Amino acid sequence: MLDDVRVVAFDIFGTAVDWYSGITEQVGAVFADRGVELDPAAFAESWRGRYLPAMARVDRGEREWAYLDALHRESLDDLLAEHGVAGAMGEDDRARLVRAWHRLPAWPDSADLVARLRARYTVVVLSNGGFRLLTDLVKAAGLTFDAITSAELARSYKPSPAAYLTTARLLDVAPHQLLLVAAHRWDVDGARAAGLRTAFLERPGEKGPHREADRAADVTCDIAATSAAELATRLGC
Amino acid sequence: MLDDVRVVAFDIFGTAVDWYSGITEQVGAVFADRGVELDPAAFAESWRGRYLPAMARVDRGEREWAYLDALHRESLDDLLAEHGVAGAMGEDDRARLVRAWHRLPAWPDSADLVARLRARYTVVVLSNGGFRLLTDLVKAAGLTFDAITSAELARSYKPSPAAYLTTARLLDVAPHQLLLVAAHRWDVDGARAAGLRTAFLERPGEKGPHREADRAADVTCDIAATSAAELATRLGC
Repeated sequence: MLDDVRVVAFDIFGTAVDWYSGITEQVGAVFADRGVELDPAAFAESWRGRYLPAMARVDRGEREWAYLDALHRESLDDLLAEHGVAGAMGEDDRARLVRAWHRLPAWPDSADLVARLRARYTVVVLSNGGFRLLTDLVKAAGLTFDAITSAELARSYKPSPAAYLTTARLLDVAPHQLLLVAAHRWDVDGARAAGLRTAFLERPGEKGPHREADRAADVTCDIAATSAAELATRLGC
Repeated sequence: MLDDVRVVAFDIFGTAVDWYSGITEQVGAVFADRGVELDPAAFAESWRGRYLPAMARVDRGEREWAYLDALHRESLDDLLAEHGVAGAMGEDDRARLVRAWHRLPAWPDSADLVARLRARYTVVVLSNGGFRLLTDLVKAAGLTFDAITSAELARSYKPSPAAYLTTARLLDVAPHQLLLVAAHRWDVDGARAAGLRTAFLERPGEKGPHREADRAADVTCDIAATSAAELATRLGC
């Protein structure tokens, strides 16, 4: 069944890069500069926690299309106010924090995994990050893909079908010829509903040490892999 | 003035890859298979000659948006009929020839030039080829860019301003922060009219041995380079 797959669409936040460590570190640096005594890791978790609800409001049509940078900025402003530190954080600090999402470390095995997959498949980015954000992020993380696609090109966020089907259209393949690789059950569920093939890649540290990442055993997908090496092997790479 | 440049948009056909040799060779192979006794080089030139007029009809609104593959197919069908060889060429042959534009050799210095530019700038593809075509072409030619943008994303072909400005919008830069690198005067003129910075790269063999390529001395641009090495140096790379 997977013999039809021609293109692999690779998710980014949590799947290819470690947002938790990267955001925690950069939030910590800005908080230290401003004398803000909040726990940066807890703040990073809260910030990421606003990600899906903010995108869902766009996809339900409750607000106009907005870039992920804009959604990150709004949720940042809200969180700073809720923690009573809005006064300590100026415009430059906030812009710097929004830009933190443009520069995150790859998981140690990501570059090798993508290179192995590229030897057999066309491998593209498919993320809810904006086109510019993803271009910056992938370059800084030392990852090389064949192309970048973004929810921005569909003006619709994953898990809505349009986000997945826009990538299929741009790569000129049928949905079942496109395989999503992601570490989140909601993303795999969305791709499957759009007619894609799906591979779940377990990333146990993806949500940091305090929250449980999604687990392969709980996900309905074509390939459930607990390591990058297993995923590559199962895809014949 | 060029200090503002953040992103380089790199043209492909003739600028990064040698369409003339690649199409001549692949047309020659198909003609040989079918016993067609036309000169493949002259046919390649005629085929390419229909490229700008076909796109201009789209941009003038005389027809709906059509992918470059579709335009290539129409002009191929016309040319085969005009040469009296339509009967010799079946559906598979024609599809194979349209796909020839997805696989063309890079100029010998292209990979090194792109790598040098990428060390300082974000370097993206900007071509009238479709997104899939460009993804295939760049990969097969061994070139690595930071991202691929295409006239397809604007649904408007260069030299119309929308094609250039869509790339600026996706990379989140002002037009004057985006520099086009191209080997064609019409492309440089279009980019300049859209507010971009421009670099002309002379590719003397770009149109084959029988026709004169555009020359640096005849082009109005910010940088006129007669070699890849000169272009890289002038851009501080």
